[in-house]
Amino acid sequence: MIENTTISQQDILIKMVLDAWHAKVSQLDKLLTALSDEQLLQEVAPGRNRGVYLLGHLITLADSILPLLGYEKLAPHLWEPFVHTPDKKNGDLPGVNELRHEWVKVKTAVAEKITAISPNEWFQKHTAVSEADFAKEPHRNKLNVVLSRLSHVDYHLGQLQFLKPR
Amino acid sequence: MIENTTISQQDILIKMVLDAWHAKVSQLDKLLTALSDEQLLQEVAPGRNRGVYLLGHLITLADSILPLLGYEKLAPHLWEPFVHTPDKKNGDLPGVNELRHEWVKVKTAVAEKITAISPNEWFQKHTAVSEADFAKEPHRNKLNVVLSRLSHVDYHLGQLQFLKPR
Repeated sequence: MIENTTISQQDILIKMVLDAWHAKVSQLDKLLTALSDEQLLQEVAPGRNRGVYLLGHLITLADSILPLLGYEKLAPHLWEPFVHTPDKKNGDLPGVNELRHEWVKVKTAVAEKITAISPNEWFQKHTAVSEADFAKEPHRNKLNVVLSRLSHVDYHLGQLQFLKPR
Repeated sequence: MIENTTISQQDILIKMVLDAWHAKVSQLDKLLTALSDEQLLQEVAPGRNRGVYLLGHLITLADSILPLLGYEKLAPHLWEPFVHTPDKKNGDLPGVNELRHEWVKVKTAVAEKITAISPNEWFQKHTAVSEADFAKEPHRNKLNVVLSRLSHVDYHLGQLQFLKPR
């Protein structure tokens, strides 16, 4: 009885984190539908990142979930312009339309992979932590990768929101 | 052996969510230290909420964790001006200094309460869900309250950040 209870609590917690991820993805999707390409080319606030930069940044950060779970990235070419390089210093960027497509590709792949991961696998170490460190810090597991990326999406969603007229 | 493993996974997940909460609180603390009262009185972007409004809003949302866990709110008077009423329509607001004090009071109370909750209690229903609904939706538990508030803090942290000069 105790065992059943604890196993079911584990499933519930995984569901909480994954549901939160899917909800964030939907929120970004909704915002992207509401914003025109022209709006996405504007700065979210004077002197700050443009919408297109934050979109590329969020695609890259979602894509970076994949290698931490043991899969290949789909859009490694976006890392340099959208993470390593600040906005407006990054030369020729992919067009907004291309980024919208990359977002669909990446979010779909992430959704597929996270749906297929078993409850116990979520508690295994992610690929960027050593066995020795993981033994001391078991919270550095695969589920924590999704939890931390989630926080990153929210942070920039609050900013992207400013592209919508009041 | 299986039982031990699952119990420990449960503890790990609770730690992940609570650590994330504490990390967000520290991030907001750091930002509040960096910003002067004058800066907090500015709009985060033209025509958007002022820093002081977002601060009051975040205090209120953190405070609203308490009743969902079964405790009393510390700052119920902030709900009307900082959640129900939009910024700049809310008349006489508490001063920035008073809000800084309220934040310390609320974050300290939340930290104390969440530290005292036992692993199994995190999986009990929060106070705003009925027994019948909880039976169908067991993810509406106390830990999910913290998880969802976490997301809210991130959303506005990304905006408050704009008050810092580049």
